[in-house]
Amino acid sequence: MIKVGVAGYGTIGKRVAEALLKSDDMQLIGVSKTTPDYSAYLAKSKGVKVYAHSKADLTNFEKAGFKVEGTIEDLLSQVDLIVDTSPGKKGVENKPLYEEAGVKMIFQGGEKANIAEVSFNAQANFDQAWGKKIVRVVSCNTTGLSRVLHTIHSNIGVKQAKVVLIRRTCDPKESKGLVNGIQPEMKMPSHHGPDLNTVIPDIKIESLAVVVPTTLMHLHTLLVEFKKETSREQLIDIIKNTRRIILVNGDHGLTSTNRVIELARDIGRLRYDLPEVVMWEDTISVKDGWGYLVYAVHQEAIVQPENIDAIRSMNKLMPKEESIKKTDETLGIVNGYLYK
Amino acid sequence: MIKVGVAGYGTIGKRVAEALLKSDDMQLIGVSKTTPDYSAYLAKSKGVKVYAHSKADLTNFEKAGFKVEGTIEDLLSQVDLIVDTSPGKKGVENKPLYEEAGVKMIFQGGEKANIAEVSFNAQANFDQAWGKKIVRVVSCNTTGLSRVLHTIHSNIGVKQAKVVLIRRTCDPKESKGLVNGIQPEMKMPSHHGPDLNTVIPDIKIESLAVVVPTTLMHLHTLLVEFKKETSREQLIDIIKNTRRIILVNGDHGLTSTNRVIELARDIGRLRYDLPEVVMWEDTISVKDGWGYLVYAVHQEAIVQPENIDAIRSMNKLMPKEESIKKTDETLGIVNGYLYK
Amino acid sequence: MIKVGVAGYGTIGKRVAEALLKSDDMQLIGVSKTTPDYSAYLAKSKGVKVYAHSKADLTNFEKAGFKVEGTIEDLLSQVDLIVDTSPGKKGVENKPLYEEAGVKMIFQGGEKANIAEVSFNAQANFDQAWGKKIVRVVSCNTTGLSRVLHTIHSNIGVKQAKVVLIRRTCDPKESKGLVNGIQPEMKMPSHHGPDLNTVIPDIKIESLAVVVPTTLMHLHTLLVEFKKETSREQLIDIIKNTRRIILVNGDHGLTSTNRVIELARDIGRLRYDLPEVVMWEDTISVKDGWGYLVYAVHQEAIVQPENIDAIRSMNKLMPKEESIKKTDETLGIVNGYLYK
Amino acid sequence: MIKVGVAGYGTIGKRVAEALLKSDDMQLIGVSKTTPDYSAYLAKSKGVKVYAHSKADLTNFEKAGFKVEGTIEDLLSQVDLIVDTSPGKKGVENKPLYEEAGVKMIFQGGEKANIAEVSFNAQANFDQAWGKKIVRVVSCNTTGLSRVLHTIHSNIGVKQAKVVLIRRTCDPKESKGLVNGIQPEMKMPSHHGPDLNTVIPDIKIESLAVVVPTTLMHLHTLLVEFKKETSREQLIDIIKNTRRIILVNGDHGLTSTNRVIELARDIGRLRYDLPEVVMWEDTISVKDGWGYLVYAVHQEAIVQPENIDAIRSMNKLMPKEESIKKTDETLGIVNGYLYK
Repeated sequence: MIKVGVAGYGTIGKRVAEALLKSDDMQLIGVSKTTPDYSAYLAKSKGVKVYAHSKADLTNFEKAGFKVEGTIEDLLSQVDLIVDTSPGKKGVENKPLYEEAGVKMIFQGGEKANIAEVSFNAQANFDQAWGKKIVRVVSCNTTGLSRVLHTIHSNIGVKQAKVVLIRRTCDPKESKGLVNGIQPEMKMPSHHGPDLNTVIPDIKIESLAVVVPTTLMHLHTLLVEFKKETSREQLIDIIKNTRRIILVNGDHGLTSTNRVIELARDIGRLRYDLPEVVMWEDTISVKDGWGYLVYAVHQEAIVQPENIDAIRSMNKLMPKEESIKKTDETLGIVNGYLYK
Repeated sequence: MIKVGVAGYGTIGKRVAEALLKSDDMQLIGVSKTTPDYSAYLAKSKGVKVYAHSKADLTNFEKAGFKVEGTIEDLLSQVDLIVDTSPGKKGVENKPLYEEAGVKMIFQGGEKANIAEVSFNAQANFDQAWGKKIVRVVSCNTTGLSRVLHTIHSNIGVKQAKVVLIRRTCDPKESKGLVNGIQPEMKMPSHHGPDLNTVIPDIKIESLAVVVPTTLMHLHTLLVEFKKETSREQLIDIIKNTRRIILVNGDHGLTSTNRVIELARDIGRLRYDLPEVVMWEDTISVKDGWGYLVYAVHQEAIVQPENIDAIRSMNKLMPKEESIKKTDETLGIVNGYLYK
Repeated sequence: MIKVGVAGYGTIGKRVAEALLKSDDMQLIGVSKTTPDYSAYLAKSKGVKVYAHSKADLTNFEKAGFKVEGTIEDLLSQVDLIVDTSPGKKGVENKPLYEEAGVKMIFQGGEKANIAEVSFNAQANFDQAWGKKIVRVVSCNTTGLSRVLHTIHSNIGVKQAKVVLIRRTCDPKESKGLVNGIQPEMKMPSHHGPDLNTVIPDIKIESLAVVVPTTLMHLHTLLVEFKKETSREQLIDIIKNTRRIILVNGDHGLTSTNRVIELARDIGRLRYDLPEVVMWEDTISVKDGWGYLVYAVHQEAIVQPENIDAIRSMNKLMPKEESIKKTDETLGIVNGYLYK
Repeated sequence: MIKVGVAGYGTIGKRVAEALLKSDDMQLIGVSKTTPDYSAYLAKSKGVKVYAHSKADLTNFEKAGFKVEGTIEDLLSQVDLIVDTSPGKKGVENKPLYEEAGVKMIFQGGEKANIAEVSFNAQANFDQAWGKKIVRVVSCNTTGLSRVLHTIHSNIGVKQAKVVLIRRTCDPKESKGLVNGIQPEMKMPSHHGPDLNTVIPDIKIESLAVVVPTTLMHLHTLLVEFKKETSREQLIDIIKNTRRIILVNGDHGLTSTNRVIELARDIGRLRYDLPEVVMWEDTISVKDGWGYLVYAVHQEAIVQPENIDAIRSMNKLMPKEESIKKTDETLGIVNGYLYK
């Protein structure tokens, strides 16, 4: 039973914490938080132990009359591994604390690749994290891209890939986004291509990214030149049989990310989470040796299973396929069609 | 066991259908739909029988290879009561069909008040629908307003009320809204004040309404002149003990409708539904004989319980308080604080 | 000829600078800026002298190869008066610099009232700034509210006023706003009521405010109890004849703030600026001694003329009516109908 | 002097009408409108004669007390050429009317290509419209794409192009858009690639399109494989010297479409119109034989000059380069940098 702590209890932290509660080979010792907001109360009501993220934060909790279990140092002293889910660039500030405690650590994709020994995506390179001490689970966009390109690359072969990422401006709960406009990333290629290469080094890829005023999901338009002749049917068949990718159809009314989220609400997903890549079957096409794919990435949920698999690989708990299967069963993650 | 059909399976229809499935004194016979979209497949997978809304719609289902149970006439022949959840102004077109079938009928707030014998809100006028044949459940905004004003009026007395309704432009799944702007209703007072009076006739009220570019919830700013002296504490106490109203606190980070929805997601509400009025405790204030209240109305969910109570009243199944309590328990509806 | 500098060259700064260029009794000596962005180039191309806002900022300009005229100290040494248009709460940091230079100063509404000797609105209290050294031009929302309430109060008499302010989340050029939600101000009453009283102390007013995801204009719904009987026609007549308020009509298709902006674009307003309050004639109504008014406030432009009038009053250049008339003619500001 | 009428006075119609007023070789006889909204009053106040678009519309104008000059038949009887700017798919309904009147006609890109003898873009195929009777000015997106690809193709040679179009959901004045979501076009390739080929047939192109919740501008991410080796500098040099394309820089703060519009406002463009393609110089890059370009298309303004040039070509008024130059001078259209 691996003892795990979660630093941060925001969008990613709360999801990882809940996945830990559901996983029978891991034990959630507690979470650290900076502020005594409503989610601290919810955590406590679920039996999750809350620690102040720092001495300074402790004061906030005391002022609010919220009883914590101690500070992050107290949490670290009880765990084998800490999953850092702090906002981007904050993980690197926390790292010395984790090193001092001598625990294994997982960082998220908001940190630079060099924070860890390996950048991780379960399907693409599970084995590279085997027994490692410091692992970085790549960002939501890179995770989605990794899943799709990994399956195409290993089944067909990718000569080159070009992707345009259309990014959501902020998460639904936030209030700091682009309101009316489109904001292209000025650096070309964007960091997403190189980031994909930290996980799958041998794919030639160029990426462009723009930010748009929506909070629900990212959307990728992916153009892939294949290494060998492939039909649309073959491509769909591969996608359909790849874990953590689901197919939806525009002619069933699922024509936009907001409708995909409506589907997730209708089927009773907790928080309408879609840890799967959601690909429009209608848009999949093959022409002159290139494949065209359009899919959505639920930025809030997609890395939840990856963190669980990373813990298993780092602690040599079980091999890749077994871990992925177990995670998917635990979290209700599927592939192929959601209905029909 | 009252046999019920639901005409329409959109935002309201699917929620009413699910509430019927959960209610042990009612039986859902089936739903009618116009198009074979994904929700038709989901309905079938839940064991809900799907009927084509018309002969013309039947062709759509046939073309799509979706097997329906018949047309709405077939549905009507098996039910005691039909809940019409068609888009606004469509219910009145369906009415002759229902009359011919000799069934009781419930319409929604998108229809004019004169379509029914009584306009209904469970807490405000349950008894007026007792044994009636045609009832109109008032709109989401009027339902929210009715709950709040009814409890204040019956506990303190309302001398006059003024409300500014800040309306969401369309539902999350839709794509036909105001994108960047504010659109005031040109008619003053807006129809909401008079609509409230169809449920609670003896409150003097003026309403103004504007539409804003959001999809999540409506928000009301309500100004009430009391008939007798009241303190902030008394007002909060009344609100806290009123069914179907919950209190949230800005100082717990719940400072906007998008954060309230995040809370609903976090506590595991199906589709993040909040059939309760959500009032900010921080904003409740009393000054010079006036009370000021700010609350949010989840337009997708708020009328779900009202439809169930209307069915009970129309069929004399049980008295008001008993019905409301039963509905709340069935649907997990609460009041007061959600945590703490 | 009053020599004026403008600290800051953002939304307000650039508009005040241009108004100064057009005013024949004032001379724009220069503007200070923190960054060498495109607007620095545009300023230079119009012959406006650019100064670095601080020594540290100077480095930015040097790095970018943009030649400035010096720092703000150099600017201050040449002027009689500085108009501070820094972002909210920054003006108070700049104040010691201005005091040291011994210049008159104008701050904007983002600063607290106690930064200045008087809070200013041209129509409401021009004379109170007469000969003063430090004046604060109130915020866009308070300016709009002041204009409307001042004319009603002085023509009819206001017994009490209640206003709900529906605020734009950020300016069009910004990228840090609320994207999908409504965010009520938790403090009740909001600061806008008391702020109105810094300009017109004898109006009893309560205000509530919410933020919505739009960038174009604020919108106020104003409820006024009159001191004496008034008809809708009298109210419209007063409004129509008040400077800096224009009337538009929903039945001409001008049904929302985005359509009002379209009108401003069509009539060739520079930057589609509407320094006037824009009131919907359709919505003006009078009932039971209360008046109901709905109007939009163009947050980017409305304080432009107020700054010019403040300069005149502080320097005793000319009396109120003369100054307002001159400003309006200089800037093309009108009242009544824009066409017909 | 070519006598021209404009059918429709919306987004495109009003801009074409104003361009006609400024062009000394054309005479605007009048415009047709369906409703007596504010723009009818503005037209009249500018001396533009307004005709009812149909007999039925005539009644609307009469009811509103707005005096029109007659119906569209009266307008057609006085003109040599009609520019149809009706909403998409309406032009084809109007065509018989124009044929009966025996006038030349221009349609917009909302109509199918086969409505006209030639699909037109001034820079790409001016000469093909020479003396023609029926011409279709391609849509805003195809116009932008044509300008960019035409100059690259004629200067370097395009082996293949791939473009992802990120489309605004509706125009600023409209209220019927996508509010929170991303909506990919389900058909792949989208119609934009084939539409580009109606103007430049010999470019191999695939296009994908998505709709996003913004009203200001479209944005294209264009990937071009060159026929011969080209450097970034050469590519920038070509772009810089192409008419109707301007370059902006992210490091000057122009990092998004909303900031580009702010620039257009600041430089005093009427209605902040940018008939030019606006390309980010920062994003232009060349790698492994491919060029990457990101540019914005102002959907409201970009076809204004194209309509004028089409009139000249159809009436053999002057040769291509002369016409484009004259149009640009008349309308203030530039290329290269806007400042520096």
